[in-house]
Amino acid sequence: MKVAVMGYGTVGSGVVEVIESHESVIKKRTGGDILEVSHILDLRDFPDDKHQALFTKDFNDILNDEEVSVVAETMGGVNPAYDFTMKLIKAGKSVVTSNKELVAQKGLELLRAAKEHGVNYLFEASVGGGIPIIRPMDQCLAANNIIGLAGILNGTTNFILTKMIEDGMTFEDALKLAQDNGYAEKDPTADIEGFDACRKVCILASLAFGKHVYPNQVATEGITNITLEDVSYTASVGGVIKLLGQIRYFDEDKISAFVSPAVVFSGSQLANVNGVFNAILVRGDAVGDVCFYGPGAGKLPTASAVVADMVDAAKHTKRRKIFGWDEGSENYVVDHKAVLKNPFYVRAKASEGEIKKLFGEVKFLKRIGQPSDEVAFITDAMTENELKTKLENTDTINTIRVTDY
Amino acid sequence: MKVAVMGYGTVGSGVVEVIESHESVIKKRTGGDILEVSHILDLRDFPDDKHQALFTKDFNDILNDEEVSVVAETMGGVNPAYDFTMKLIKAGKSVVTSNKELVAQKGLELLRAAKEHGVNYLFEASVGGGIPIIRPMDQCLAANNIIGLAGILNGTTNFILTKMIEDGMTFEDALKLAQDNGYAEKDPTADIEGFDACRKVCILASLAFGKHVYPNQVATEGITNITLEDVSYTASVGGVIKLLGQIRYFDEDKISAFVSPAVVFSGSQLANVNGVFNAILVRGDAVGDVCFYGPGAGKLPTASAVVADMVDAAKHTKRRKIFGWDEGSENYVVDHKAVLKNPFYVRAKASEGEIKKLFGEVKFLKRIGQPSDEVAFITDAMTENELKTKLENTDTINTIRVTDY
Repeated sequence: MKVAVMGYGTVGSGVVEVIESHESVIKKRTGGDILEVSHILDLRDFPDDKHQALFTKDFNDILNDEEVSVVAETMGGVNPAYDFTMKLIKAGKSVVTSNKELVAQKGLELLRAAKEHGVNYLFEASVGGGIPIIRPMDQCLAANNIIGLAGILNGTTNFILTKMIEDGMTFEDALKLAQDNGYAEKDPTADIEGFDACRKVCILASLAFGKHVYPNQVATEGITNITLEDVSYTASVGGVIKLLGQIRYFDEDKISAFVSPAVVFSGSQLANVNGVFNAILVRGDAVGDVCFYGPGAGKLPTASAVVADMVDAAKHTKRRKIFGWDEGSENYVVDHKAVLKNPFYVRAKASEGEIKKLFGEVKFLKRIGQPSDEVAFITDAMTENELKTKLENTDTINTIRVTDY
Repeated sequence: MKVAVMGYGTVGSGVVEVIESHESVIKKRTGGDILEVSHILDLRDFPDDKHQALFTKDFNDILNDEEVSVVAETMGGVNPAYDFTMKLIKAGKSVVTSNKELVAQKGLELLRAAKEHGVNYLFEASVGGGIPIIRPMDQCLAANNIIGLAGILNGTTNFILTKMIEDGMTFEDALKLAQDNGYAEKDPTADIEGFDACRKVCILASLAFGKHVYPNQVATEGITNITLEDVSYTASVGGVIKLLGQIRYFDEDKISAFVSPAVVFSGSQLANVNGVFNAILVRGDAVGDVCFYGPGAGKLPTASAVVADMVDAAKHTKRRKIFGWDEGSENYVVDHKAVLKNPFYVRAKASEGEIKKLFGEVKFLKRIGQPSDEVAFITDAMTENELKTKLENTDTINTIRVTDY
């Protein structure tokens, strides 16, 4: 079966590599068919690449090739990926993607178009890289009401936090190391500000609860305010700081979904996810907590997820997968700061006496080198808004939600 | 759609409960259909149960009811479950099961019969309880050559080992606590001798590599030889002792598969799986290591996996899932003791000098209360047969393989 690849960057070139190196496995899964890459779309030249005959700069070469029935979109970004994907779907081709930005922004429209045209739009690689999560969640969902999800969804920030926690590196040094190792882009904004994790939260929430969640509905806070002092205080009580995407179901018309640093205690399966690895925890009312762990990014892991989707699409050219969701209402994602009660880690310029007056008996944390006018403590469970009110007149340095996952 | 449940024990009664309590979720997944339990087969009486009208002691009531198209087999054991399942399949009914013993012993025949009769035989709940593993593995397999698998597959033994490691309980006390908590049977043999884990290894190996592996091909060692002394020594170097099922692929005609205690070091995702939880790690050549974690047993988690399979079978009454495998050759599972090289933990009555003569420079471990004539150490990587030869004339107390997962 002829297939095409759009975007020959890290993931796209990995897709071509996996297709070529896994012919026998693919043959077994499709029941005899192989995938044959007939076009690679990229505006750049790759003079040293052995696939010269396959390169094209003209999208129409793929669109108009009637023999191509499955296309991998590994371009990233909304434009022109959206336009290309929509045209392919309308032309009766299935599209599989690793492009979380596109699925988070335009998944609803693309899935509707796919349904209308009887083709598949699959996106396993868009969340958790190589970790199978979309289908397992689908499986969990069949006999569970999902109560919530929490995930370490961005490998770059998890690498930085791991280096801060395990090696005492500063944020700046850890970021530089991530860049030197190729884990972080030159412009790391999308990672460290949480935008990448936000897109994945949108996809997970849309899939879990059947209504599209857009990035602008998800309050997003990155890790740039996390310091080694916070790491020390939380470590003193067995906690680690992780960038988490958290989703909670209230009812059919109401969920919360946000990205922020969170204190995770050592009993959690999310506490031991280190380096560039990702993990997604799904909490069901019957199954309890199940957790999926693995490489959240990287050329071959992500490419293998894209190719698995291509195999699936190839097997189901005339049958649609059930993935899909509806439009949500305006206030579908509520302000988590007003409703979600959790303990909070607080660090402030204050005395223990002043804190006790505000919070009653709390657990004070200690660190080496702690200034005499600095306190850190863990509050009782309350909403973030209640916390803010209580701290109104306190010189607060940082607050971090303690997760219940 | 009418369905039946055979065996009204813990899992079977959970299946009925999940079907009744999750009607709206199930409806969504089937596209409008509900599952309606029309028969419950059990030889026992349940006078206080509200489903009196559904109980039957006669299997033929299910077999001959043409309206029943999906049956959950939650009886356990090979007989009469095998006979019943085969008859149902031949009558054109799909069967889903949590019965690992039956799948491990008779999976090949039942899957062949299901194929022949155009129905499904699904068994997600037979490995890892509520953890989705069969389908995710299927997904991983589509674009990966699986190199190996390792799993904590039995919650009872993991609970016992966790209590020994975390609370310093003896094996006997931890076993008693497991029994008091309902985690272990009165006769705990199947768990503590590793037979339960062995069956799950058979299913995982059969699925991963396409050839049936039978329980008698899987060398199986339980945890009854593990003592608090072993726990202390391994803890001194950041290791924990876990009962692992380990599977390794060599080539199409050669795998290893065995169950034994193993030393797991703290970097591993398997090291932090505690209590009754299970985890399965799959190592693929493209994706790397992915790990699936969750409740490995329990009424509702396992039942939710059974019901998810029922939903799947209900959606695909006229279309078979691809699960299936062939007969393996006689020497398909090789003697892992002869081929697999790993470091080993060794505890012996000997002097450090004697050990150095046999093993060269090794890492000696220490524990509080260590007798002066006792040593414990970690060897270099070697086969278990090589280790045995080296220790031929040493008064060895225990040896445990260090896993590379």
